[in-house]
Amino acid sequence: MSTAAVILAAGLGTRMRSRQPKALHPIAARPMLRHILAAATEVFDRAVVVIGPDMPELERIAAPHPVVVQVDRLGTGHAALQAAALLEDFAGDVAVLYADNPLITPETLRRLAAARGEAGLALVAMRPVDPGRYGRVLTDATGDVQRVVEWADATPAEREVGLCNAGVICAPASKLFGWLRAIRNDNAKGEYYLTDAVALARQDGQRVVAIEAPEAELRGINSRAELAAAEASVQARLRAAAMAGGATLIQPDSVTFAFDTQLGQDVTIGPNVVFGPGVVVEDEVEIRAFSHLEGCIVRNGAVIGPFARLRPGTLVERAAHVGNFVELKATVLGEGAKANHLSYLGDATIGAGANIGAGTITCNYDGVNKHRTEIGAGAFIGSDSALVAPVRVGARALVAAGSVITEDVPDDALAIARGRQANKPGRGFRGKGGKA
Amino acid sequence: MSTAAVILAAGLGTRMRSRQPKALHPIAARPMLRHILAAATEVFDRAVVVIGPDMPELERIAAPHPVVVQVDRLGTGHAALQAAALLEDFAGDVAVLYADNPLITPETLRRLAAARGEAGLALVAMRPVDPGRYGRVLTDATGDVQRVVEWADATPAEREVGLCNAGVICAPASKLFGWLRAIRNDNAKGEYYLTDAVALARQDGQRVVAIEAPEAELRGINSRAELAAAEASVQARLRAAAMAGGATLIQPDSVTFAFDTQLGQDVTIGPNVVFGPGVVVEDEVEIRAFSHLEGCIVRNGAVIGPFARLRPGTLVERAAHVGNFVELKATVLGEGAKANHLSYLGDATIGAGANIGAGTITCNYDGVNKHRTEIGAGAFIGSDSALVAPVRVGARALVAAGSVITEDVPDDALAIARGRQANKPGRGFRGKGGKA
Amino acid sequence: MSTAAVILAAGLGTRMRSRQPKALHPIAARPMLRHILAAATEVFDRAVVVIGPDMPELERIAAPHPVVVQVDRLGTGHAALQAAALLEDFAGDVAVLYADNPLITPETLRRLAAARGEAGLALVAMRPVDPGRYGRVLTDATGDVQRVVEWADATPAEREVGLCNAGVICAPASKLFGWLRAIRNDNAKGEYYLTDAVALARQDGQRVVAIEAPEAELRGINSRAELAAAEASVQARLRAAAMAGGATLIQPDSVTFAFDTQLGQDVTIGPNVVFGPGVVVEDEVEIRAFSHLEGCIVRNGAVIGPFARLRPGTLVERAAHVGNFVELKATVLGEGAKANHLSYLGDATIGAGANIGAGTITCNYDGVNKHRTEIGAGAFIGSDSALVAPVRVGARALVAAGSVITEDVPDDALAIARGRQANKPGRGFRGKGGKA
Repeated sequence: MSTAAVILAAGLGTRMRSRQPKALHPIAARPMLRHILAAATEVFDRAVVVIGPDMPELERIAAPHPVVVQVDRLGTGHAALQAAALLEDFAGDVAVLYADNPLITPETLRRLAAARGEAGLALVAMRPVDPGRYGRVLTDATGDVQRVVEWADATPAEREVGLCNAGVICAPASKLFGWLRAIRNDNAKGEYYLTDAVALARQDGQRVVAIEAPEAELRGINSRAELAAAEASVQARLRAAAMAGGATLIQPDSVTFAFDTQLGQDVTIGPNVVFGPGVVVEDEVEIRAFSHLEGCIVRNGAVIGPFARLRPGTLVERAAHVGNFVELKATVLGEGAKANHLSYLGDATIGAGANIGAGTITCNYDGVNKHRTEIGAGAFIGSDSALVAPVRVGARALVAAGSVITEDVPDDALAIARGRQANKPGRGFRGKGGKA
Repeated sequence: MSTAAVILAAGLGTRMRSRQPKALHPIAARPMLRHILAAATEVFDRAVVVIGPDMPELERIAAPHPVVVQVDRLGTGHAALQAAALLEDFAGDVAVLYADNPLITPETLRRLAAARGEAGLALVAMRPVDPGRYGRVLTDATGDVQRVVEWADATPAEREVGLCNAGVICAPASKLFGWLRAIRNDNAKGEYYLTDAVALARQDGQRVVAIEAPEAELRGINSRAELAAAEASVQARLRAAAMAGGATLIQPDSVTFAFDTQLGQDVTIGPNVVFGPGVVVEDEVEIRAFSHLEGCIVRNGAVIGPFARLRPGTLVERAAHVGNFVELKATVLGEGAKANHLSYLGDATIGAGANIGAGTITCNYDGVNKHRTEIGAGAFIGSDSALVAPVRVGARALVAAGSVITEDVPDDALAIARGRQANKPGRGFRGKGGKA
Repeated sequence: MSTAAVILAAGLGTRMRSRQPKALHPIAARPMLRHILAAATEVFDRAVVVIGPDMPELERIAAPHPVVVQVDRLGTGHAALQAAALLEDFAGDVAVLYADNPLITPETLRRLAAARGEAGLALVAMRPVDPGRYGRVLTDATGDVQRVVEWADATPAEREVGLCNAGVICAPASKLFGWLRAIRNDNAKGEYYLTDAVALARQDGQRVVAIEAPEAELRGINSRAELAAAEASVQARLRAAAMAGGATLIQPDSVTFAFDTQLGQDVTIGPNVVFGPGVVVEDEVEIRAFSHLEGCIVRNGAVIGPFARLRPGTLVERAAHVGNFVELKATVLGEGAKANHLSYLGDATIGAGANIGAGTITCNYDGVNKHRTEIGAGAFIGSDSALVAPVRVGARALVAAGSVITEDVPDDALAIARGRQANKPGRGFRGKGGKA
């Protein structure tokens, strides 16, 4: 049977105090909406995202999944109902998920979908350490759900129940949208609550079942502090996975991963390292303290940092070294090549074994376009040189220290481009700096 | 009624193992003494600081509040009595506070002052998780304080009392200094204890009352470990406040704030960011990992870092960018201007939309004086250039990469100042670095 | 009596998922094997290390202690027996220790050796919070060890015993190797277990005693997560010791020490600082955020960072300053000298009071050899200069900003080596970067 997920992402997140839609806020360098979409599409065949008006960025990151717009904010039941436009005639099950509940796992969603097969409606429940004001899930002797009671309406005995409603449900489209339309807003806030679908399913004579999932997956994100807590929980998972996979994290808590960081075996990561999205690190690489990597590939045996920045489009080949205060952008650093000190290498291709001296700058931008620098294998770029792109330095070429290279340098040639030195006796330094 | 605070700050802090007065050690980039002065002067009309001999730095940071010097260290009662020289005839209440107890809140001090209105002496008490060897506050059936008993003198039953003396008291100046003079030093250490004022007030027929405050406010700082714990507690408060105010802190525990850091809404702060004092960050600013800011203003929509350092006197205008390994000092970076790579910009004014190439250095110091660099709006400074101040680069001027600019460049002019390139065939690199 | 330690270090550490021997993985910048060797040689007169085949790196770091190779991995009893080749005729006690148990303290080893004096065999036991599947140590009424029972063989009552076997034993060589030879491998795994020596000692009529040590010392390291936990525990100890010694750690958890970091009094260490091995910091030094130090000496009153990197062979003299994005390698920075911005100083000797301008680069490497740069006392190196080594800049010499210095500069001379500036009107910047 085909399945679909409806993801409610229209929230503004008042408590976030943000001008951005809540679902746009990132965890581990990926917007919440994309987290839940990744989990949902691992289990369900289709996904529909319900967004609010004027959320073009959210629509963009929802792609290729279609969005529907909830113009008026009338509650979760009303939000889910907006998906009817796309899923009314869908011949399968529909689950309703939340973008601000992005840590739910595919495993839980699979269990939810399976549970639906045995009942008219399945919901996700949890047993929080502090059940607080969550709605309580009341079951009968067989474990079937009888009803969900809001905390405000619950009797003292009902409040003693530890099983709480996480709000996530799954039901056949053919039934679900009917129930959603039947939901009433005769409550204190005048909102249409998705949870009321449970009672309507029961009225409809349907069996309702609950699966239990860990609270950690189901905690909502309604404030920056809760966002930080979710980030911490995801980071803890990523760090543990990295270590289990054979990477040494000297101070795990000081390493920030992206959701998709890939690490090989015997990788060592020093303290205070940050990964943006899209990083692949192969085996036996050492990433030293204070390094910042995004959108790059680092091949076997390379050494990065400390204080290195690898920006998108960078490829560091085998056994190459990137040292301190060095930035690489859209640059290939060849096998065994070295750029160890205070350099900016942008839009460059650097051959195997080349040595890039301290303070080398590729002048890749003329204010309008970016141009490429090519440095041949075995070339030696003297320290404090500038390479004005587009320019090509040949294989085994030697650039004298302090040169500004504006023309191509042939293979095996020496290039020198700097002023001559003049010494003027007796005109030395007499300022206050001189204490000797 | 007028009120005054006497702040005891004469301690050397033997357990700190420091040559500095204890009250000089900072928490969140502000000396302890200034923390307690800030809290005290929010509530009391005047403050007098009791310092030890030879503490000129402490006197300086106490300003504009007067100091009195406790020449001999004879105990807290003796220390407080030194303030008599300035407050003996003061027609109001005097509270005695401690510089090594700097986390007490204005709210607690307000409650202390209010409680004094209802009694001859008010003191601050707490209920520590581990009461240990604190003096115990013994109260009668009405809750009034009968006496404070030192742990050493307490009976087993008295030691069971959880209410402990924090040492902070408030009483009318007209009474207090008399009591302080009556304190005796006939105890094991031969010291005059401020706490004895409680018994003297009672002997004087005065009612004594206690207010309770959280232990966290009242924990003393006597070692570097306790200093670090206080720092952690203040940082936790600052981080929570930043998040509640609408800033995202990706890894909150890795961000170090100063006591006065101001953040706008929708500010994002990456991992490992340090704020020194005097930083104002407006809305929608992104401060990336490994950035270090002090004494600067960052306007709406600017992007800072990673690896950026903003030093005092810096103003980053709207939507400007400061990138990696870039240092700004006493510099204005105009609206939308960019300085993204490996640059030092000191004592400079940079116009709107200017582009500062990688490796740009302002040579602002001649060993005696600092000089300013002016860069006009829309100018383009080619990479690896040096600007020898004082110098002015005009609007829309273009500085060729690798130039050393020593003379002004008119608006709309091109300036070039570098050696010419010579290529010498066959004289390329043959060293061991060349593996190709 | 003479004593010896046998250190079992042949493990590959399958759960580490590493191609490296387990004992080579570092904690606080020192391989595990060297941790246990340091503890062992503080107490025992000799040490012998049992390694696996093809572990040349481990043999190297074991030096000067001899290694024996366990060719087949047949269990801990078999591993310890390999030391017989060197210790069979040793007239003293032999303790058997584990390289993957590197946090055992000299104090515990001393107690073990002392306990052996009163019995035929002494072992180390612990009472873990969760005894889990550890072997249990069963004692009689006098406290003597009757036997050690493996968890799998233990009765429910025996499993209730909290005293667990840590695996560390000490016995006279004259007895020990006989027992080791008598150990059988008739168990599920077909291995020779060192623990069986306890039963053999008892059969031999020997008294066996246990000393208890904290679990934290005895936890084995079998995975990267356990390695990180050990690192955290060592770091916590190093941070506490640093603070107790009179250093301020603003955010202690963000500071990474090496096992041998030495700090003076009134040193302040900012957030996010990393120490590699071999660092000595004298009194009243300030090490600001994001600094990285290894193999260097920093003398009284110097200021380092933020964003400074000091590499091996560096000596920063009294009151000298190393600022942001500055790297020093094998360099002496003289008393009161300053190198505050974006510089690389390698293989250099810099005189007292010299001022190194922003963007200064020593060109110390010609691709084959490293050469030295000498800068005299009171010299002033203008910003953005390159010093092509070998080269000497004299005392009180002045190097003009932007110069490439290739020849020696006499004392008191001015050196200038840069292109002349030409301004070309009307050829300014018209690119998209210019918004003005």
